[in-house]
Amino acid sequence: MPQGQPNLLLLSNSTAPGRAYLEHARDAILQVLDGRRSLVFVPFALADHDGYTDAVRRALEPLGVAVRGAHEGTPRDLVADAEAVFVGGGNTFRLVKAIHDLGLLDVVRARVAEGMPYLGSSAGTNVATPTLRTTNDMPIVAPPSFETFGLVPFQINPHYLDPDPSSTHQGETREERITQFLEENDVPVLGMREGTWLRVSDGVMRLDGVSAGGRVFCRGSEPVEVPSGTDVTWLVERVGSFDVGG
Amino acid sequence: MPQGQPNLLLLSNSTAPGRAYLEHARDAILQVLDGRRSLVFVPFALADHDGYTDAVRRALEPLGVAVRGAHEGTPRDLVADAEAVFVGGGNTFRLVKAIHDLGLLDVVRARVAEGMPYLGSSAGTNVATPTLRTTNDMPIVAPPSFETFGLVPFQINPHYLDPDPSSTHQGETREERITQFLEENDVPVLGMREGTWLRVSDGVMRLDGVSAGGRVFCRGSEPVEVPSGTDVTWLVERVGSFDVGG
Repeated sequence: MPQGQPNLLLLSNSTAPGRAYLEHARDAILQVLDGRRSLVFVPFALADHDGYTDAVRRALEPLGVAVRGAHEGTPRDLVADAEAVFVGGGNTFRLVKAIHDLGLLDVVRARVAEGMPYLGSSAGTNVATPTLRTTNDMPIVAPPSFETFGLVPFQINPHYLDPDPSSTHQGETREERITQFLEENDVPVLGMREGTWLRVSDGVMRLDGVSAGGRVFCRGSEPVEVPSGTDVTWLVERVGSFDVGG
Repeated sequence: MPQGQPNLLLLSNSTAPGRAYLEHARDAILQVLDGRRSLVFVPFALADHDGYTDAVRRALEPLGVAVRGAHEGTPRDLVADAEAVFVGGGNTFRLVKAIHDLGLLDVVRARVAEGMPYLGSSAGTNVATPTLRTTNDMPIVAPPSFETFGLVPFQINPHYLDPDPSSTHQGETREERITQFLEENDVPVLGMREGTWLRVSDGVMRLDGVSAGGRVFCRGSEPVEVPSGTDVTWLVERVGSFDVGG
């Protein structure tokens, strides 16, 4: 197998306010695909696989990219032969259960190590990290393990939300939830606000997008703001020891 | 062992705006304790067991209720001998992992079946249902199973939040998350707004509290509003087949 550098586009979310599905990230999508004219879409985070795949097809075919649903054949085989893979958002627990049940963990890792482009949005970005432990989703099903692809060695929290100072709601803020995560796991968390994405290519990791960027949380230090356009490759150095599965 | 009816007080949350910890539910707490002068507090949803137990002590000792932390001895033995048990909120995944690791599942079920009062708040209310699958919390650790006490046969979503029509946030609303849960599990979900509690005694389940009440979600029907003061025992009849563990 040819080896390559991971070539990733990890979107916080799929739709910016007032824009069509994936429209805000169109240039970034074309960049990560780098001339490839087809991809396999992984729709398992939502219940309606056909409907979800059709929506992606409508967004990407006008860009000259043919879309095949991973459920339209044997998912492992389709991924093994794909030019590129796009994992869509929805419920992360449902997605992770499907990834394990369908045997996709190893094949995606192997193809990404060869340089196959990987695109993820929301839950599809969560599963590009080592574990689902920083998802915002409800645990509606129990996956056999919390382990995910680990295409980047740190955690991402998509749809990152700043605390609302006017709220009287007693549930935890996102920052409090991530602080609880760091009590149990020594690994940085990159909170990505909506409209933000992480681009990984040639060994460089850059936060980018159409928003105010992100916020980085590491055990034992104050959170750090990272504006769009920032190189965040340094996060790799801050990864401590933590258990990805269970 | 003497058998009794389950005697439960399941709070959506521990603190109402502008009031002290547990103050809004003081009368309901005294009612479920029914003259008992001590309880064992289960602090495992938070990291600081001593500090958390002290906070509960400060709230309940003025009511004449002595508080012992479940971590101040062998948790199983303390629960086995308790006059009452109170399970506090925090992170539900961390709490469920502790419940399994410490062998608390069977002893709590057995004591509640004898009529021992059970009080829960937030995560402590989640674990009174069959499974943690309707928690709002981040999966910061992986419990060996999602199965919880099942003291009521349906699911509860604490801190239930109505959709915010002015929000442009692309993450799912609470109602959308619960709808995804119902795609995978055929069991009612009682969304309890803050300030609400479920009181179970003499075979009757009543939603009560200092708020606008709750909202019930069942597979295949429209959500139903349930104001405070409503008998919701009928939810038991709507429980279909679903897998609690995994």
